[in-house]
Amino acid sequence: MMFGKSHDTYKSLSSKEKKRLLKEKQKELGVLQREVFEKQIPTVLILEGWSASGKGKILGKIISQLEPRHYQVYSAKLESIVTRTRPLIWYFFTKLPVKGKMVLFDRAWYTPVFERVLDKHNEEEWADKINRLEAQLVDDGTIVMKFFLDISKKEQEKRIKELEENEDTSWRIVDKDWENHHQYDKRKKLASKFFEMTNSPWAPWHIIDNEDKYDGVLELLDIMLQTFKQALEVGLPTTLREDIPVPLKETPYLADVDLSPVLSEEEYKEELKKEQEKLAKIQNILYRKKIPVVLAFEGWDAAGKGGAIRRLSWALDPRGFDVIPVAAPTKEELNHHYLWRFYNELPKVGHIAIFDRTWYGRVMVEKLEDLTDKKRIEQAYNEINEFEHVLTSWGTIVLKFWIQIDKEEQHDRFMARVNNPEKQYKITDEDWRNREKWNLYEDAINTMIQKTSTKKAPWVIVEGNDKKYARIKVLKTIREALEKEIEK
Amino acid sequence: MMFGKSHDTYKSLSSKEKKRLLKEKQKELGVLQREVFEKQIPTVLILEGWSASGKGKILGKIISQLEPRHYQVYSAKLESIVTRTRPLIWYFFTKLPVKGKMVLFDRAWYTPVFERVLDKHNEEEWADKINRLEAQLVDDGTIVMKFFLDISKKEQEKRIKELEENEDTSWRIVDKDWENHHQYDKRKKLASKFFEMTNSPWAPWHIIDNEDKYDGVLELLDIMLQTFKQALEVGLPTTLREDIPVPLKETPYLADVDLSPVLSEEEYKEELKKEQEKLAKIQNILYRKKIPVVLAFEGWDAAGKGGAIRRLSWALDPRGFDVIPVAAPTKEELNHHYLWRFYNELPKVGHIAIFDRTWYGRVMVEKLEDLTDKKRIEQAYNEINEFEHVLTSWGTIVLKFWIQIDKEEQHDRFMARVNNPEKQYKITDEDWRNREKWNLYEDAINTMIQKTSTKKAPWVIVEGNDKKYARIKVLKTIREALEKEIEK
Repeated sequence: MMFGKSHDTYKSLSSKEKKRLLKEKQKELGVLQREVFEKQIPTVLILEGWSASGKGKILGKIISQLEPRHYQVYSAKLESIVTRTRPLIWYFFTKLPVKGKMVLFDRAWYTPVFERVLDKHNEEEWADKINRLEAQLVDDGTIVMKFFLDISKKEQEKRIKELEENEDTSWRIVDKDWENHHQYDKRKKLASKFFEMTNSPWAPWHIIDNEDKYDGVLELLDIMLQTFKQALEVGLPTTLREDIPVPLKETPYLADVDLSPVLSEEEYKEELKKEQEKLAKIQNILYRKKIPVVLAFEGWDAAGKGGAIRRLSWALDPRGFDVIPVAAPTKEELNHHYLWRFYNELPKVGHIAIFDRTWYGRVMVEKLEDLTDKKRIEQAYNEINEFEHVLTSWGTIVLKFWIQIDKEEQHDRFMARVNNPEKQYKITDEDWRNREKWNLYEDAINTMIQKTSTKKAPWVIVEGNDKKYARIKVLKTIREALEKEIEK
Repeated sequence: MMFGKSHDTYKSLSSKEKKRLLKEKQKELGVLQREVFEKQIPTVLILEGWSASGKGKILGKIISQLEPRHYQVYSAKLESIVTRTRPLIWYFFTKLPVKGKMVLFDRAWYTPVFERVLDKHNEEEWADKINRLEAQLVDDGTIVMKFFLDISKKEQEKRIKELEENEDTSWRIVDKDWENHHQYDKRKKLASKFFEMTNSPWAPWHIIDNEDKYDGVLELLDIMLQTFKQALEVGLPTTLREDIPVPLKETPYLADVDLSPVLSEEEYKEELKKEQEKLAKIQNILYRKKIPVVLAFEGWDAAGKGGAIRRLSWALDPRGFDVIPVAAPTKEELNHHYLWRFYNELPKVGHIAIFDRTWYGRVMVEKLEDLTDKKRIEQAYNEINEFEHVLTSWGTIVLKFWIQIDKEEQHDRFMARVNNPEKQYKITDEDWRNREKWNLYEDAINTMIQKTSTKKAPWVIVEGNDKKYARIKVLKTIREALEKEIEK
């Protein structure tokens, strides 16, 4: 039970004195905000609270001396948060701040619990997701602060009535506010329990008694100031969560894959037609059943990702899928959590997102080219499993293809490109450089596959020396997986 | 009347021959698409048509041999197009392709007319907006193609029935399809009229008779091939529209502005408090009345934009406004129409967007630093008036502030920054370089203000030598403009 802590620091002061202190602290916050901006630390501030607890007013006081170019307020309606077209976390993840800036969420990922609209997730599952999300942010260098504005049931009744009676504010009060009020005790119990479930050391809850005009905001500002100072002087807390326990799927090491299978031109044509026809039908059913699908493609340079994706896309209704080519991150993307750009591309229900290269770049090229801090790379395997768990637990079908060829085959394909004027553009110095690191890459890929091939989001190794065989295997694997899901 | 043209090119051929031709043309389209991609030309393809006219199937045939990474299909529901939170064009403008890529709109900006859901705009007004939008795209180097799939009323009835009877497709048919069918003749008349109104030389309509399985798509592909070839070989058509006739507001030249007004500290404090209180109340009313507001800030370096914006934002409920700092465009932004990034930041109804620097960079820094083609700069004044007309005609309040200081005052402020360790970061070599071009900038700014200060979206010149006076003038001007709008 986290309610009911008493906060007496400012109680005995006069109003005048409190007002003076408020101004002082607002100013101090403004100064610290600039330092945080200069150090490029992003901040997420979450403001939850009872109906009529004064969230709007407190927000106004928080931002009063802040540089307006460096923060953003999201005040989402419940319907927007609980979109039902994509996983709950999607809404927030796409709105996370760039480095140096602050996002203030007026209601955030706790609202679905407080408003009791969760259906697919029970509370424990959701608490686990929240804890992991907040840990991901802190691991990435984000300051996370969570406040709940508390007022008594009696005070709430008084405020709602006052708001109703004032003609400037009466429109703000809706039936739901009274409904919430009547369930106050029940909701308080629920909230207490949920606070405990999500009160992590790296993102602790702060329950702010907001009955007094000044005491609450003074206390809240103290916590903000302290959190900023600590981040600037000491750094962010270390998160200590355990890896998400996702059952792994046994998947072979690359060296053990037999690359000899081939298909004749005839078999290929026949199978291609058959699989494409089946896929078209299944896509229709997926659309109606509102099942989203994520297909991730990785593979050696010249392994044939593009060709496989084309055969797949030609079978599909273009209104129901998107191909997302993933290149090196832009500056804006680099200024966000690395999963941010992928959250931005999640498919709507009933739609298929085909990723041509993926979030696994993190543990391949970013690892081998030292593009990212080593510690962050090590955390990425678990972060990716957490990310994919967000997808699969929400009903998304996730399949990941590694198209495997051997070093000789790659050499032949590179040379064929070099010798073909129309395909020369496809081969770059970088391709040759990557090739020199073949063994290092193979190690990284094996590690990646062994750590992230999960039962719900498995890696499928595609024998790619024969392009025809590879393309059919991709189509067939997808078709079978989708069929299985539909028959459920 | 554009319906009823006969297209006989392929009528006499056998099905087998047509099928062969289809494959050939699809392949050719794939080759041309790559050339278009390499030349970095963006393409917008619009597909409209009767219910059950086969839009989905045709789309599938168009993309059949395309590189899936280089196109995107938007198949929007009517509710998404007619969002009612932002101007109609916003939905499409934010989805325009980057250079080299193609966007296929399965229903586009014509749908609100065909579905007869326009309310705020009458048809003529909307046709004018469409023509200007399409011209803007063509001026920016975009290929625009518009197709309408036509079938007879009898054929439509047959197809709807067939779709209903097939259990795989019956879910696609909704009441609205039958309703559309019963209004076929009326709608055809409406469509004919609207085709004529929007049949510009730079974006002509192509009505495709789609009764036959092959004839329609063959004709459509021919037009696509021809359009691509022409764009590659000859270039894009010249658009010949007239400037949008927006009434101008008389606004002084910079040299004629008297910069002597000042406010005492006392007057300033008093006025500040008064204006901020009034603004807070007005914001509440704007929110309830769902009126969006765009406030644009420009001015010399060190003129005091930031300070004015801060005083403004501190008066406002943070849940109802956003400050958008505008810097040099990112690579992604450069790959779009230059107005794209501003469309992306338009305020929702009831919200306020405060732009710290704006789309006017186009006719100041981009002009003087030769960052953009001269012809495009010349077109920008009209394009900006068209853009702001989209906003104001939709009910957005638009105010643009030029904060004016003289050269001496700027020098003093620069030196004060140089001599203050805390503010040194605010002054860069670029600031000094810009200062050297003061006269050139002054000419450009005068031109800009004289060409774009319209009655509905006026420039307000703020005497900025005294910061206090400037801040109060900004607040007062906004407050008065909003009050006037509310009292309407």
